[in-house]
Amino acid sequence: MVIPSLIEHKRDGGALRPEQWAELIARYTAGEVPDYQMSALLMAVVWRGLGPEELAALTDAMLASGDRLRFDGFERPRVDKHSTGGVGDKVSLVLAPMVASCGVAVPMMSGRGLGHTGGTLDKLESIPGFRTGLSLRETRAQVERIGCAMLGQTPEIAPADKRLYALRDVTGTVESIPLIAASIMSKKLAEGLNGLVLDVKTGSGAFMPQPERAIELARTMIGLGEARGCPTVALLTAMDRPLGRACGNALEVEESIEGLRGGGPEDLMEVTYALGAEMLLLVGAAADREDARRQLREAVDSGRALETFARIIEAQGGNPAVIEDPGILPQARAVEVFRAPRSGIVSAVEPRRIGRAIVELGGGRRTVEDEIDPAVGFVITVKPGDPVRAGEPVASVFAGDENGIALGLAALGEAVTIGGEARRTPLISHRITAAGVEILGQGR
Amino acid sequence: MVIPSLIEHKRDGGALRPEQWAELIARYTAGEVPDYQMSALLMAVVWRGLGPEELAALTDAMLASGDRLRFDGFERPRVDKHSTGGVGDKVSLVLAPMVASCGVAVPMMSGRGLGHTGGTLDKLESIPGFRTGLSLRETRAQVERIGCAMLGQTPEIAPADKRLYALRDVTGTVESIPLIAASIMSKKLAEGLNGLVLDVKTGSGAFMPQPERAIELARTMIGLGEARGCPTVALLTAMDRPLGRACGNALEVEESIEGLRGGGPEDLMEVTYALGAEMLLLVGAAADREDARRQLREAVDSGRALETFARIIEAQGGNPAVIEDPGILPQARAVEVFRAPRSGIVSAVEPRRIGRAIVELGGGRRTVEDEIDPAVGFVITVKPGDPVRAGEPVASVFAGDENGIALGLAALGEAVTIGGEARRTPLISHRITAAGVEILGQGR
Repeated sequence: MVIPSLIEHKRDGGALRPEQWAELIARYTAGEVPDYQMSALLMAVVWRGLGPEELAALTDAMLASGDRLRFDGFERPRVDKHSTGGVGDKVSLVLAPMVASCGVAVPMMSGRGLGHTGGTLDKLESIPGFRTGLSLRETRAQVERIGCAMLGQTPEIAPADKRLYALRDVTGTVESIPLIAASIMSKKLAEGLNGLVLDVKTGSGAFMPQPERAIELARTMIGLGEARGCPTVALLTAMDRPLGRACGNALEVEESIEGLRGGGPEDLMEVTYALGAEMLLLVGAAADREDARRQLREAVDSGRALETFARIIEAQGGNPAVIEDPGILPQARAVEVFRAPRSGIVSAVEPRRIGRAIVELGGGRRTVEDEIDPAVGFVITVKPGDPVRAGEPVASVFAGDENGIALGLAALGEAVTIGGEARRTPLISHRITAAGVEILGQGR
Repeated sequence: MVIPSLIEHKRDGGALRPEQWAELIARYTAGEVPDYQMSALLMAVVWRGLGPEELAALTDAMLASGDRLRFDGFERPRVDKHSTGGVGDKVSLVLAPMVASCGVAVPMMSGRGLGHTGGTLDKLESIPGFRTGLSLRETRAQVERIGCAMLGQTPEIAPADKRLYALRDVTGTVESIPLIAASIMSKKLAEGLNGLVLDVKTGSGAFMPQPERAIELARTMIGLGEARGCPTVALLTAMDRPLGRACGNALEVEESIEGLRGGGPEDLMEVTYALGAEMLLLVGAAADREDARRQLREAVDSGRALETFARIIEAQGGNPAVIEDPGILPQARAVEVFRAPRSGIVSAVEPRRIGRAIVELGGGRRTVEDEIDPAVGFVITVKPGDPVRAGEPVASVFAGDENGIALGLAALGEAVTIGGEARRTPLISHRITAAGVEILGQGR
């Protein structure tokens, strides 16, 4: 296999054969193909795209580069949820214990914060002692015992994806629907699932803001999952404003606990219930959508969902007392209220600006090595469409010092727009399955 | 400067600013930008192209990465010729001594064989002792003394191009007109020239077979030269058949000596005279084209051109006796005649097939490290359009052994087509200057 010829073929709009993708990825993972050839090929893929056969072969090759979670002899159905990333998106923390409390196992592999978006692992690790670096063996044991484990990508899972992802991140080759789909699905398919639900974000704060592109990504991932025996469904949800009120790692854990206790912001819970219902339906754990929602609500109301979260925390080395006493979470040294600068209707709360501000406050990473401050962030109590009066408190900044407070207040001043027309996309706009696209809500 | 952002900007069709190109190339040459980022950017350039400002900035940055030949206080005008590469293209060996014999200095920096095409350095080095690795100081001294030096790219000249070229070669990013133009011109502009003539090949054996693309390449290089005080003119010449009769390093040196002696195949001499006339005219060394051709012919007829070649050979460590006794050149151990398999009109002599066969015989390189056998090659005495009779000798194979002979005869069988319509492009089809494109000949 002559690599430059493969690159030229892709560059000129040709398709590589499945066995060429297989050999290429195997040799890249073994360190036999240098990064400079792979990055040129990746740019050619961004340019020319991938045909369905190529995409399937690339995904399979990435999946085959590592190990899988195996649940031989374990009876319970297994399902997971993946989000394409947003601001204030703590859905996983509420959803995984809820679904696991309904008798469906959730082996959930998540990621870290990326760019302006937060990451489930960073949020969980704000709980003192919480360990996300589980081995496959530990994961299996915990899933069988508690029904859920929440971990990071292990070194055994899709190592090709790990190398490719790091390379794409520094070579301008992230924004490609087939490459994104292959990356996500090669990891999810390694979890040994019976079903997968995708939360594909759209709007200004999403990595893929246009609904058309988000739908294309969803359909691409669904195609890959379905063809590999993993029924897959996607919901398109709004990321033109933060989800819920809390944005920042420890603050989001606190809000998630509220959610599991039956409180929690309406939008967060609506998305969580909708995704949870899809998960139960996918594996036949509910008769219909109504039954699914009833089961999920019962898991919350009975306290079982919160109890499951406590067991997960304890099993992974964290302090479960956080459930009763959120004061155990890291606390910001400086807090300040942000007041509406004038009266009017809130027209926008820009999630990208909020996400960037969290990184500036130290709550996210600029490089992989950065340590983060889990305590910093925002609680924003208004949504686009809400009327506010001048001087009314609409948000709080949580920071490490007074400089951080100033920075946070300035960010809120830019992110929160009052006056003008309030536009927001419907919270859950589309439901996408192998059968097609169903429109659930219209923007206003 | 954040490299991934630059790559993304180019990927999305944007233009990098001149100072960004300057910093990028400087940092790449210093080893501060990794190859994997540069190759992704190069693929984005192949995709999106380069605007005129970007191309100028890239060329200047590559030029500025190294040193230049300086001829302060040297009165004679200096001119060079560059060919985009072909099979049997030994023009430089005849042309440089001819032009230098007309009182115009020729500091000629050439390359090695690439793919199916031969290289001037490889040809010269088939002369026993000939050394092409001159320093800038040696080059200047020899040009001032003899009027000509024939050397390889020195480490001081455009080191950025050297690194970039090696990277492009293995990452499928060679075929880009702006990248090719910047690479060639960053080296030629470092020669301290008062004029440059480009021999841009077209036809099946050229790197850029379509005349439209060849013209675009010529215009791009002319634009770069003219804007930097180096008047530049291009001739488009035919590479749908080998130039001259000899193809192979030592064989081409022998044919070049014939040419300097006043013999030499008609097509070779026609191209050489045409390019030579352009060179003299560019620097005002001839009153008009007729005067230029008269001077060149006089240099040959008087023996001065051959004498200059002998002095170049001697100055660069070679054995000048080769002029009188070509038997000094490496001789093939096996020679065989190829006869026309049937009667008819020769419709094609495919240069790419001949060039590939020379590589297979050991006369060209597959990798940079390969040693070559200078003695091997072909002498092909027919051209498309010539009538031949079955059994008539039309070519000879020069090889290292009988296996090579078999290989060479098979290659000739494929390359030389008899019967059907003879098509060949005009030997010199277009003349291109800053003012525009002049059509000189029509195909038949």
